[in-house]
Amino acid sequence: MLIEEEIKEISNTIDKELKDVLKNKTGYQNIIFESINYSLFTGGKRLRPILLLKSFEMFNKNHKNAIPFALAIEMIHTYSLIHDDLPAMDDDDFRRGKLTNHKVYGEAMAILSGDGLLNLAFETMLHHTLENSTTIEEYKKNIRAMEEIAKYSGIYGMVGGQVVDLMSNDIQMDEEKLLFMYENKTAALIQASLVSGAILGGATDLEIENIREYGYNLGLAYQIKDDILDEKEDREVGKLTYATYLGLKAAEEEINRLSQKATKYLMELRNRDTKFFEELTEFLIHRSY
Amino acid sequence: MLIEEEIKEISNTIDKELKDVLKNKTGYQNIIFESINYSLFTGGKRLRPILLLKSFEMFNKNHKNAIPFALAIEMIHTYSLIHDDLPAMDDDDFRRGKLTNHKVYGEAMAILSGDGLLNLAFETMLHHTLENSTTIEEYKKNIRAMEEIAKYSGIYGMVGGQVVDLMSNDIQMDEEKLLFMYENKTAALIQASLVSGAILGGATDLEIENIREYGYNLGLAYQIKDDILDEKEDREVGKLTYATYLGLKAAEEEINRLSQKATKYLMELRNRDTKFFEELTEFLIHRSY
Repeated sequence: MLIEEEIKEISNTIDKELKDVLKNKTGYQNIIFESINYSLFTGGKRLRPILLLKSFEMFNKNHKNAIPFALAIEMIHTYSLIHDDLPAMDDDDFRRGKLTNHKVYGEAMAILSGDGLLNLAFETMLHHTLENSTTIEEYKKNIRAMEEIAKYSGIYGMVGGQVVDLMSNDIQMDEEKLLFMYENKTAALIQASLVSGAILGGATDLEIENIREYGYNLGLAYQIKDDILDEKEDREVGKLTYATYLGLKAAEEEINRLSQKATKYLMELRNRDTKFFEELTEFLIHRSY
Repeated sequence: MLIEEEIKEISNTIDKELKDVLKNKTGYQNIIFESINYSLFTGGKRLRPILLLKSFEMFNKNHKNAIPFALAIEMIHTYSLIHDDLPAMDDDDFRRGKLTNHKVYGEAMAILSGDGLLNLAFETMLHHTLENSTTIEEYKKNIRAMEEIAKYSGIYGMVGGQVVDLMSNDIQMDEEKLLFMYENKTAALIQASLVSGAILGGATDLEIENIREYGYNLGLAYQIKDDILDEKEDREVGKLTYATYLGLKAAEEEINRLSQKATKYLMELRNRDTKFFEELTEFLIHRSY
């Protein structure tokens, strides 16, 4: 199967499962279900849940038990976008051509929808764990996966990266701070997806660490590719990125270096079928959108 | 020991443990550690962690394993206050006589600090569970406690209540919607504290359900007491509460009815030492602040 087709297929599964999460939920708080659904379905690429499920599948073919975790990672990604778009943050009116959450539901509801989604992510994983675990190994794997997701999402991960992004207008940025921001704001959640998928699938500790490094390098390359795609616009508003800081040519070289390093870690998973991730790495660094 | 002294003692323990959570943490995201610490120490009564630890102690004297959960519930309570105070929400400049988080750190940092705290709550509980559980029963109890906390905190709990609170200016409120708001905005986190404490302590399912009902009635009585204390101010700004809706006398009667019902459920825990909670119920409904 072509990688685009495979991505489309998993993405459809995720859409279907995400739709079911809040299906038939009613109550006086109805408007928040509507607001959350609005943001969950604004044409996201579903990259993070795809990473989680495909990472799982390298170790275990039946990904049914990983789905609640894949939904959770998309909920966390979505909450972070809703809060990022707020007037006090990036103040964006549009995302992927659609009005941002607060433009439709108002700022207060957007704040609560983000809070609700972050909470729902943990609720979903915990509920699944409680309902479906039977052995101590299953409990352990699930807790370990949740802890990785929590760590990469929080103040030592994504939120920490957003803090530095926020300050980047006011403080002297340099390559070290830029790297910190990329590691945390972007690579962290990509690592969370890959690592938690591998843990749930039953990877060994060594395999997990190779996947963690793969995710780190892929995440950075992915972010720099984003910078290159936005370079013209960023340069005009004076935003500091790898592309505006180092120039386009050096940024391209950095992507190549990082993707080669990513592939090297992938190759360490000797007996596993890594074809999807080899192709995905190429696909992500050569995308034009 | 007098109840005030006992509360003071546990509250000191919680303060000490909360201080340790972010101690010696440094990084480019430093400002968020500072902001989180600021809000964690603005003179809160620590009611929810006290409920959790004392509920635990009815079933198990050594509350050491419950402390990370007590810290988590205070983190969740604190995040909800930071977000509640934001300009888009209640727009409060002061809380307990101190500037609110966004007045000190700005709106964007206040949003991220709330997000960071909610995430840190789950991170703290998950990390503790992973590090300290050895038997399947321990994993199960911890997961079950976390799931209760997640459920009561989220869109079917506290966040759901906040949604209705937010809408209360625009929609026709009635006693049923007011009750929904109180159940979710206030009683939910009180129930989460009591129920998770009992689960962690090893209570039976029947005991857990009695504690859940105790928490429900205590939580509503606690909120109506709050309304009575704020009645004059609420009446002036036209805010609908039990006290302004039913009148002071009816609100007082409702508190008495609810606290008697709460005590009835407490009495069902026949072989347990419920003295602290009997006194606490009286203390909370007769407080003057």
